[in-house]
Amino acid sequence: MIGAVLAAPDGRVVVSLDVLVENRHFRRDWSSAADVGWRAAMQNLADIAAMGARPTSLVVGLVLPADLPARWVTGLARGMAAACAPSGVAIVGGDLSAGDEVVVAVTVHGDLEGRSPVLRSGAHPGDVLALAGAQGRSVAGMALLQAGHPRAHLDLVDSYRRPRPILAAGPAAADAGATAMLDVSDGLLRDAGRLALASGVVLDLIDPAEAFRADLAVLDGAARLLGVDPLEWVLAGGEDHGLLATFPGGADLPESFRVIGHVHAATGPEVAGRVLVHGAAAPVTARGWDHFRG
Amino acid sequence: MIGAVLAAPDGRVVVSLDVLVENRHFRRDWSSAADVGWRAAMQNLADIAAMGARPTSLVVGLVLPADLPARWVTGLARGMAAACAPSGVAIVGGDLSAGDEVVVAVTVHGDLEGRSPVLRSGAHPGDVLALAGAQGRSVAGMALLQAGHPRAHLDLVDSYRRPRPILAAGPAAADAGATAMLDVSDGLLRDAGRLALASGVVLDLIDPAEAFRADLAVLDGAARLLGVDPLEWVLAGGEDHGLLATFPGGADLPESFRVIGHVHAATGPEVAGRVLVHGAAAPVTARGWDHFRG
Repeated sequence: MIGAVLAAPDGRVVVSLDVLVENRHFRRDWSSAADVGWRAAMQNLADIAAMGARPTSLVVGLVLPADLPARWVTGLARGMAAACAPSGVAIVGGDLSAGDEVVVAVTVHGDLEGRSPVLRSGAHPGDVLALAGAQGRSVAGMALLQAGHPRAHLDLVDSYRRPRPILAAGPAAADAGATAMLDVSDGLLRDAGRLALASGVVLDLIDPAEAFRADLAVLDGAARLLGVDPLEWVLAGGEDHGLLATFPGGADLPESFRVIGHVHAATGPEVAGRVLVHGAAAPVTARGWDHFRG
Repeated sequence: MIGAVLAAPDGRVVVSLDVLVENRHFRRDWSSAADVGWRAAMQNLADIAAMGARPTSLVVGLVLPADLPARWVTGLARGMAAACAPSGVAIVGGDLSAGDEVVVAVTVHGDLEGRSPVLRSGAHPGDVLALAGAQGRSVAGMALLQAGHPRAHLDLVDSYRRPRPILAAGPAAADAGATAMLDVSDGLLRDAGRLALASGVVLDLIDPAEAFRADLAVLDGAARLLGVDPLEWVLAGGEDHGLLATFPGGADLPESFRVIGHVHAATGPEVAGRVLVHGAAAPVTARGWDHFRG
């Protein structure tokens, strides 16, 4: 590509990269081109927000089969632009190549605006665990598509196609003293486990029937339709890209966050990286999404 | 990926992105994994140098077939690191996914160190056209591999596998007042045409038998072996990633640059974007590499 110049008024730039591959991260019969573009952009914007930064710009690498209609590519660009516009994020450049399957590689940059970057590794015993954003909707939407119900519970299907994380919650969390943060992309328990491992702590979710009451109510109809326990969607679902953060006990949480658990020291039988649900080991069915297992 | 924080002491960051796809940009039977990594990194470093900046960091997106040996991936990383080390460039992060064919998407960042970025569009009539680096070697090496002569003229095959652009020539050119610059990635005439078009000028290469005497001498043996006119390699070859720049007439060129032509106004029958060779229209056989035509 032709190079681009990004402003970096902070003297630092935050960068992240995600690669999406057709039939692994999206299906062209489940999502429109614009949906794929939206999701590719949004999950990258969430990565930047999760560091406490404001996303500023994308560069996009595309691999496109020769028989892909041109309108698919323009649709992809339109969806990316739609996801970026409300945050004022610019798509500053890219590169494309022919190939056998569609690949969308997005690199995103962000501005810390003077904040210290929030890492995964800073959670301390005594902190509270909090979440900004919905949980379980995207995976429910995917399950509906998988089961051949694209038109039932359109709000959930739309959450899968166009996740809407609260990007402003990231910088707000950093300003409120968040000690650790990441976005929930592979599943709540799995990503909580990553935060716990990086921080050397144990996380204990409060009773999820309480903590996720509103999410469970939204999921109830679809869960009945598919014969699924909606709690599994809440605990194992990713790709809503909610922001999972820890804050010192007693901190004033930003409005968009709700407490969903507590941070404990890793002592005795509880090893660092473990995630408990209401004091008990997490149910084994509650696994996150693993792109290599499919 | 987990986000990374880049230093941006200049208050700006230069960014570029290139995507390489197996069997389109590289072949695993022609290049080792380390060679592919070297080339993926180096062509990105050259993009940054061509803006007058010093490359500082890479982020790397990989798509890997499930049956790809792990040692291929470690080899790729080793080759990237080897290409980056002499410039002090760090690989700061990345993302990977399974997929049907190998894709390497590299995003590179650079530091302008207070310089104004050099664009393609600033060439003026009266400027001289100059090149830093070898020309024609990479395409000759590829032709040798294509013709089944991997062991003849190993220096040329190595130039294809591990191009060695003079990265320091980019910032040096900017300091010397370069008015336009790009790296020769798709062919000398083709990339010169891009510079001419962006600048609204005509470029006239001086007699290539003179200007590229040293390159032609290096290519002579391989050209005889394959029955090719080495001038075609010089004029149409890309991927040596030499830096092609224009400087005001009378400017002191940095040591690594040699004059290869002149910039004329686009008047009369000479339309903007045209590239002449010694006053004549370029031979039609001298086409650059087009990834979609293969």
